[in-house]
Amino acid sequence: MAKEIVNREENYSLWYNNLVIKADLAENSAVRGCMVIKPYGYAIWEKMQAQLDKMFKETGHVNAYFPLFIPKSFLSKEAEHVEGFAKECAVVTHHRLMANPDGPGVVVDPDAKLEEELVVRPTSETIIWNTYRNWIKSYRDLPILINQWANVVRWEMRTRLFLRTTEFLWQEGHTAHSTMEEAIEETNKMVNVYAKFARKYMAMPVIVGRKTESERFAGALDTLCIEALMQDGKALQAGTSHFLGQNFAKAFDVQFANKEGQLEYVWASSWGVSTRLMGALVMAHSDNNGLVLPPKLAPIHVVMVPIFKTEEEHSRVIEKMELLKTRLEKLNLSVKIDDRDNLRSGFKFAEWELKGVPVRVAMGPRDLENGTLEIARRDNLTKESREFEGTENHILSLLDDIQENIYAKALKFREESTINVDDYETFKQKIEEGGFLMCHWDGTSETETKIKEETKATIRCIPLDGPSPEEGKCIYSGNPSKGRVIFARAY
Amino acid sequence: MAKEIVNREENYSLWYNNLVIKADLAENSAVRGCMVIKPYGYAIWEKMQAQLDKMFKETGHVNAYFPLFIPKSFLSKEAEHVEGFAKECAVVTHHRLMANPDGPGVVVDPDAKLEEELVVRPTSETIIWNTYRNWIKSYRDLPILINQWANVVRWEMRTRLFLRTTEFLWQEGHTAHSTMEEAIEETNKMVNVYAKFARKYMAMPVIVGRKTESERFAGALDTLCIEALMQDGKALQAGTSHFLGQNFAKAFDVQFANKEGQLEYVWASSWGVSTRLMGALVMAHSDNNGLVLPPKLAPIHVVMVPIFKTEEEHSRVIEKMELLKTRLEKLNLSVKIDDRDNLRSGFKFAEWELKGVPVRVAMGPRDLENGTLEIARRDNLTKESREFEGTENHILSLLDDIQENIYAKALKFREESTINVDDYETFKQKIEEGGFLMCHWDGTSETETKIKEETKATIRCIPLDGPSPEEGKCIYSGNPSKGRVIFARAY
Repeated sequence: MAKEIVNREENYSLWYNNLVIKADLAENSAVRGCMVIKPYGYAIWEKMQAQLDKMFKETGHVNAYFPLFIPKSFLSKEAEHVEGFAKECAVVTHHRLMANPDGPGVVVDPDAKLEEELVVRPTSETIIWNTYRNWIKSYRDLPILINQWANVVRWEMRTRLFLRTTEFLWQEGHTAHSTMEEAIEETNKMVNVYAKFARKYMAMPVIVGRKTESERFAGALDTLCIEALMQDGKALQAGTSHFLGQNFAKAFDVQFANKEGQLEYVWASSWGVSTRLMGALVMAHSDNNGLVLPPKLAPIHVVMVPIFKTEEEHSRVIEKMELLKTRLEKLNLSVKIDDRDNLRSGFKFAEWELKGVPVRVAMGPRDLENGTLEIARRDNLTKESREFEGTENHILSLLDDIQENIYAKALKFREESTINVDDYETFKQKIEEGGFLMCHWDGTSETETKIKEETKATIRCIPLDGPSPEEGKCIYSGNPSKGRVIFARAY
Repeated sequence: MAKEIVNREENYSLWYNNLVIKADLAENSAVRGCMVIKPYGYAIWEKMQAQLDKMFKETGHVNAYFPLFIPKSFLSKEAEHVEGFAKECAVVTHHRLMANPDGPGVVVDPDAKLEEELVVRPTSETIIWNTYRNWIKSYRDLPILINQWANVVRWEMRTRLFLRTTEFLWQEGHTAHSTMEEAIEETNKMVNVYAKFARKYMAMPVIVGRKTESERFAGALDTLCIEALMQDGKALQAGTSHFLGQNFAKAFDVQFANKEGQLEYVWASSWGVSTRLMGALVMAHSDNNGLVLPPKLAPIHVVMVPIFKTEEEHSRVIEKMELLKTRLEKLNLSVKIDDRDNLRSGFKFAEWELKGVPVRVAMGPRDLENGTLEIARRDNLTKESREFEGTENHILSLLDDIQENIYAKALKFREESTINVDDYETFKQKIEEGGFLMCHWDGTSETETKIKEETKATIRCIPLDGPSPEEGKCIYSGNPSKGRVIFARAY
């Protein structure tokens, strides 16, 4: 193969990085921690965006856009929020460069210092709630159900393509409600939208759960999440939905007159997923040959590679392929004929496997004689020869099969990697092997912190959609526990 | 009317600002020069984006994403480019805030100073061409036809909602080619895509032309543009497409091996339109009652307002409206029934006129008896009563009529406001009245500058798609001219 990637059994982390770069998803840029999302990677992100946006609109949300910059003083208005974000902010202090008086190039113009520094948004609760103050007077102005697609910046010390980058792309929903119940309902609704998206489109099984207090969003009263298991046994938080109570309404003095004409603080939720999902998608399904893309998010559904010796064979094969392409496009499938003249078919096969295209069609002179073609599935790498006529419908249902199979495979892996553990010695052994460890926990941050320090495992979530909780004893302290929580090492 | 706007004849600038705010398109934010794009405004922008994105993809382009930040040193690599942008840059100098040791709040942590300052992108040629260096080795890697949807920041001293804001949203195409001819062809192709979009979707007549040297993009060899005329007689540059020659390839050392194996510098184009188009859309068509939206970009095509006295009438009217709504939605139209119980129908009429919804349907008890309804057009404010049955197809063709009529009206206005002027005295009078003045010019920057200083008029463009140029004498210097150019005062 032209573009070698290391085996995932050998070095999972390097395998991931190789794959992201060699499949042309993204690469590191000249700016520390910031990535370039390449066209093939961006095409997958666009598919994710389109589907999520549709689901947000179906649940009554509209899009808007708020400023990139946040006045420094805004961040301080919510005590926990500033604590969470101040340490990793890009800060704009000047608004002009000038010719360097001492040599070539440009320098910051000292006369162009801002009166108040601006922070590049790490998240937008503060600027948005400052805006909502002017939008909300009465209960008739509520609810506000707004989403924003945007870039955000968090100055991370250690970055990895898609999983943790200084700048990333995301959506952030920010909703305002007249009652606590409605805000909580919204928080629940949106984490379930994320779960549905992850399962149905990313073919990625996720657990919906609640974060412990120490893992909550800075400024939230409650954080719900979807947690996925990667193939190396590490957990990945793929989306979060926060019940913010009245914290931001109080910090920015956002009150509304209720039906009785009395002023009350507004209730809030916020929720987001980011380009981190791209990392999750890669890690959840790919293999040593490259990406395995679920058809619902694949930029190209079917790639066709012509096999030929003579120019006459070539043109006859291409003619047939064009015919099939037209038929497939009528079924809303995205098709590419790889007719590059400087590469061998074996090289092309490997390249499209690397890029995770779900179905590959090959056709050569013998196929022309027999009225056949060869179809290869990316997910299980099987091949079959079949009749040319009727292939389009076969491929359509094959894509459904592939989507389901990818999900089933990931679910099986997760189920096999999820075990109940009831004592701390076993826990310390098992955590080395990876997976979700379902354990009793006494509910204290002290225990949580100690387990984390001793084993690097964190409580991923208190699951909400599994079997009903059974009582037990904390694996660490032996104190009473109301139900099992999920421990894992995480990205 | 609940939300009053000043008459445009009285104060055009205030009328525009009133309209943008009161129609809920956008508002100023707490951050100097940055706007909040509100859901209704953003919905129009999304429609613009979707259509442009489709047109870009149809012409072979793909999307990607490059970093928000540009290392300061990159800007200096192209001499004209840095000259053009250094004076209006937001500069990130630090990456952390800390608790204020002298009081409440947070301050910039002096220990978190960046080694090299980062500029928030004012445009992305530099970071992109620095990236292309690694992507381009051979002629087989070309062309690269990439577009990016992004936010950019230019520290403008005087800002106006949509027309000139510190942060704005845009798309920027950045293409790389192996020959000069191909890059020039791309530059032309894209300005024509913009022209088609403006005419067909925004219903806005535009002139395609070439900028004079002094109005070119900083770093371009040639800048093409689309220029529109606003209702106050001022011009607005609505989109630009630049032939960059080999300037950025040389600045960032981007070379490719041609078919003969020799190294050559790569040829470039870049092209962009921004949320400024929103301002153009408002200014081109709106009236004293509010927005007039072309149906192809209207978030809501049809609004329905029920008229009733009794609860029984109300429910019967709503039932009919729901039926019509279903039928209209089958035709892919977006419909809203305004069933708010605390507002009178007159107020609702005014509000939807303000928001520019192309078609309004009203229905009352008499309509129920007669099997009729009332249809009002926003563009010419006419009303008609007609049969309920078959209305959906009538509305569909009415929307086409409205789209055409809005364009025709704007075109008529522009044609009436475009005059040939052949002497400078007349020029000085006519420029006060606004409009496009078609004048001979001697081709020198000196003349252009003097006219600008004396009259505030600029050369909007040297038109490319009008009648073939006739020779003449410069209105200012009397020197020979190769053809008329368009002078106007501009936004």
